Amino acid sequence: MTDLQSRPLIDLDAARTHELDRAHVFHSWSAQDLIDPMVVTRAEGSWLWDGEGTKLLDFTSQLVFTNLGHQHPRVVAAIQEQAATLCTVAPSYANAARSEAARLIASHTPEGLDRIFFTNGGADANEHAIRMARLHTGRQKVLSTYRSYHGGTQLAVNVTGDPRRWSNDAASTGTVHFFGPFLYRSEFHATTEAEEGARALEHLEHLVAMEGPQTIAAIMLETIPGTAGIMLPPAGYLQGVRDLCDRHGIVYIADEVMCGFGRTGRWFAVEDHGVVPDLLTFAKGVNSGYVPLGGVAISAEIAATFGQRPYPGGLTYSGHPLACAAAVATIRAMEDEQVVEHAAHLGRDVIGPALRELAARHPWVGEVRGTGVFWAIELVADAATREPLAPYGGSSPAMGAILAACREEGLLPFANYHRIHVVPPLTISDEDVLAGIAMIDRALTRAHAAH
Amino acid sequence: MTDLQSRPLIDLDAARTHELDRAHVFHSWSAQDLIDPMVVTRAEGSWLWDGEGTKLLDFTSQLVFTNLGHQHPRVVAAIQEQAATLCTVAPSYANAARSEAARLIASHTPEGLDRIFFTNGGADANEHAIRMARLHTGRQKVLSTYRSYHGGTQLAVNVTGDPRRWSNDAASTGTVHFFGPFLYRSEFHATTEAEEGARALEHLEHLVAMEGPQTIAAIMLETIPGTAGIMLPPAGYLQGVRDLCDRHGIVYIADEVMCGFGRTGRWFAVEDHGVVPDLLTFAKGVNSGYVPLGGVAISAEIAATFGQRPYPGGLTYSGHPLACAAAVATIRAMEDEQVVEHAAHLGRDVIGPALRELAARHPWVGEVRGTGVFWAIELVADAATREPLAPYGGSSPAMGAILAACREEGLLPFANYHRIHVVPPLTISDEDVLAGIAMIDRALTRAHAAH
Ligand SMILES: Cc1ncc(COP(=O)(O)O)c(C=O)c1O
Ligand SMILES: Cc1ncc(COP(=O)(O)O)c(C=O)c1O
Repeated sequence: MTDLQSRPLIDLDAARTHELDRAHVFHSWSAQDLIDPMVVTRAEGSWLWDGEGTKLLDFTSQLVFTNLGHQHPRVVAAIQEQAATLCTVAPSYANAARSEAARLIASHTPEGLDRIFFTNGGADANEHAIRMARLHTGRQKVLSTYRSYHGGTQLAVNVTGDPRRWSNDAASTGTVHFFGPFLYRSEFHATTEAEEGARALEHLEHLVAMEGPQTIAAIMLETIPGTAGIMLPPAGYLQGVRDLCDRHGIVYIADEVMCGFGRTGRWFAVEDHGVVPDLLTFAKGVNSGYVPLGGVAISAEIAATFGQRPYPGGLTYSGHPLACAAAVATIRAMEDEQVVEHAAHLGRDVIGPALRELAARHPWVGEVRGTGVFWAIELVADAATREPLAPYGGSSPAMGAILAACREEGLLPFANYHRIHVVPPLTISDEDVLAGIAMIDRALTRAHAAH
Repeated sequence: MTDLQSRPLIDLDAARTHELDRAHVFHSWSAQDLIDPMVVTRAEGSWLWDGEGTKLLDFTSQLVFTNLGHQHPRVVAAIQEQAATLCTVAPSYANAARSEAARLIASHTPEGLDRIFFTNGGADANEHAIRMARLHTGRQKVLSTYRSYHGGTQLAVNVTGDPRRWSNDAASTGTVHFFGPFLYRSEFHATTEAEEGARALEHLEHLVAMEGPQTIAAIMLETIPGTAGIMLPPAGYLQGVRDLCDRHGIVYIADEVMCGFGRTGRWFAVEDHGVVPDLLTFAKGVNSGYVPLGGVAISAEIAATFGQRPYPGGLTYSGHPLACAAAVATIRAMEDEQVVEHAAHLGRDVIGPALRELAARHPWVGEVRGTGVFWAIELVADAATREPLAPYGGSSPAMGAILAACREEGLLPFANYHRIHVVPPLTISDEDVLAGIAMIDRALTRAHAAH
C-alpha cells in the first residue's frame, strides 16, 4: 500500500496516453483511422493543457457541459466527500445525496415540474421522457424539429433532426420531423421574427392535423436548439406550441440538456418564454458533467399516471449518489456565486456586443445570434445568397483553415459544419471571453486573407 | 468557505431523506404511490445500514454491480485522486485515465476484443453494439432470448426478453425472440443437459432459417442470463451459436453486463465455453458501479468497418475520466487481491455445497444452480409440477413472506418473481456468505411453516 500511496494511480505521459488511445479507445462519431485525438493532461476553469503543455482557452465547455468550468473546487470537494461516504446504492433506496439533488433541481425547474427521474445523460433522459409521454397518452408518434439533437441511443437519435440520424434511420418508428422557426434560413419565406414565428406555428398546426392529433404522444423541442445552431425561438412561438399541445392532449417535452442550468442566462430557457412544458429533460449543466447524470423533471399530472401503475423503465445507475452529490455542489455554487446572473451579464454586456461588432467587419459572418453564454457565428461563403461556408453535415477547406487558425491563436473552438459556437464556461471572466473572441477575430482575418 | 468545510455538504437525517425522496424522486419500474423506499445511510464491504441504523448483509450487490463490495478503499482513493486531477473531458480527446482503463479492460477481454467504446451503462452499451452489428452487416434484425434483460432504453428493452419489455413493445422494430436452453423448464422436452443444449441449438438454427439468415444482423445473448434466472448454458451450446453466426455472417454479441468482470469466477463468462464473440458488452463490475460506466469491446474486424467510415454514434460522457479511473482501480484491485480466484472458490467450495444442502431439505426449493458468486434458488409451489412459487412477472404471498423473513433475519435478498439470487460482492468472506445462506435457510423454514 505504501507503493500505491506514493505514486499516482494512473501514471502515463502524453505519448503513452496517445499510443494507448490509438490502440484501445474506439471514438464516437468518427472514422477511427482518420482521427488524431489531442491529449488533455490538465484543465482549470476556462483553460486546458494539451500533451505538449500548450495552454488553450476552452470556448467549448467540452461538449457544452462544464458550465462551472474545469475543476471547480466545491464540486471536486463534494465528489471526494461523497466518495468517502457512499459511492453508490441501487435506485430503489432513498439516499441523502439523491433526495437533496432532486429537491434542489425541483426548486429551479419551472412551476410544477417537481418529480425527478434520474438517468445517466441526455439521451436516456429523452428516451424515458418519450416513454412517459407514450404511456400517459396511449399514443405513439413523437414530433421533433429538423436541426435538433436529442441523443445517440436508437430512439433518441431517430428523434434527432440532424445528419447524425441518417445512418440510423432503418429502425425509426413513430418519429416525425418538421421545420422550426429560423429566420435567417426561413422555410416559410418570412422576413421578420414575428412573421417567422407565426408561420412556423401555423406550419406545425398543419402538420399535426395531417399526422392526426390523436396519434401524437409528444412534441419534443430543444427550447433553443444547441448543436444545430442556437436559434432563439421568436416571441410567442413556444406559447403557441404549448396551446397546440393543450388543445390536442399532446405532451410538450422541453429538451434542456444543453440550454438548461444557466447556459442562457436563466436557470432554464423556457423561463424567457413564459411556458411550462409537461416534461423537461436535463443533463450536462446539472453537475457540469463532472459525473455522468441526466434526468427528466415531471409534471404532477404525468407523475400521477404512474402513481398506482408501475412506470416500466429504469437503469442501474438512476440517481447515482456520486453524480447527485456533484449536482448538489454545482447548484449551490451556482446560487452562491450568482453564476446565472453572470451568464446573463456576459451575453448582454460582453459577448453580444463583441460578436455584433465582429460580424460588422467580417464578410464571412452571415449572422451572430444567442443569449447568455450560448452564441452562434453563422459563416457564409456569400452574404447575399447565405450559402454556408461548409455544406450541411460536412466541412470545407475554409472552415478547416478557420479552425486551425483558432488553435494557433490558443483557442479551442466549438464548430458544427459552417458555424462556430461561443460556448465557454458560464464562469468565464469578461476579459477571457473578450480575449477568446479576439482570437476568433484574428483567425477569421487570417483564414480569409489566405483564401 | 470555513462554514462549507466544517459541515458536510449533504446533511439530511433519515426522516428528511425519506420525505424528500417521496416528494421529488421518481423511481424506476415502480408505481410511485405503492413504494416505500428504505433509506440507506452507510455501506461497507458486504454490509449496509438502513435509516434506523440496522445493519444488513447485502446479498444483492445492489443490482449485482458492487463486485468489490461497498467503499473499497482503493477505488474510493482513485475517485478522489482523479477528481483532484481532472474530473472530465470530452470524448474526442485522449486522456490518461481513459487510455489506461481501455488497455486494462482489453487485457482481460477475450482474445481480439481490443478496442473499447465506452458508454454510461449497460443499456447504451447494448444499443451501440446493435448499431455496430447493423452497420457492419447491413442487416436489421436482432435475435435474443426470452428470459433475458438487456436494458431500459427503447431498443435495449425491446431486445429484452422479460416482462419489462411488455409495456414498451409498440415501438419494437427488428427484434425477434427465441427460447434458449434451460433444462429445468425445458421448452424442448429434454431430460439431460446435453439433450437440452443440442435441441435448443437446433431450434435456433430453425428460427434463423425461418427469419432468413441474410436479414439477421446479430444474435445477442447474456452468456449466463442474470436477472432472468442464472441459467448456465449446456456445454457446446455457445460454440454452436458461434458456428451458426460464422456460417451466416451474423454478429455474435455477448452481453456480459451482469455476468462479466469476475462474477462467475472467470473474468468473463464466455471463457468457460471457449468462444469469442464479435462484440462483448460490459458495465456494472467494470468499476463496481462506483461511477456510471459501461462499454463495448470490439473485434478487429468490426472496428475495421469504422476505420475509414465514421461510426455514427456517441454520447457526451463516453470514456468519462472519473468513471475510467474507478475502473482502473477496480481492475487492479481485482488482480492484486485475486478477487476472481476468490469468486471461483466461493462458488466451488462454499456457496455451491451450501445451497445444494439447503435444496435437499426445503420442499419449496426446486433447483439451485450457478457458478462463482452467481446463484439462483428456484422456488416452486410443487416439486413435481415445478409450478413457480410466484407467477411470471409477478409476486405471491409466499414469496412476500420469504423476503420479509430474510429482512428480519438481517439479510437484503435479491428476488425476481419466484427466485432468490445469491449474488453478494465477490469479496465476501466464506463466513459471511455462509451466514447469509443460513439466514435464507431460516427464512424459508419460517415462511413455509407459517404458510
Ligand atoms: C439538446 C441535447 N439533447 C440531448 C443530448 C444527448 O445527451 P447525451 O450525450 O448526454 O446522451 C445532447 C447532447 O449534446 C443535447 O445537446
Ligand atoms: C445483462 C444485462 N444487460 C444490460 C443491463 C442494463 O444495464 P443498465 O441498467 O446499466 O443500463 C443489465 C442491467 O441489469 C443487465 O443485467
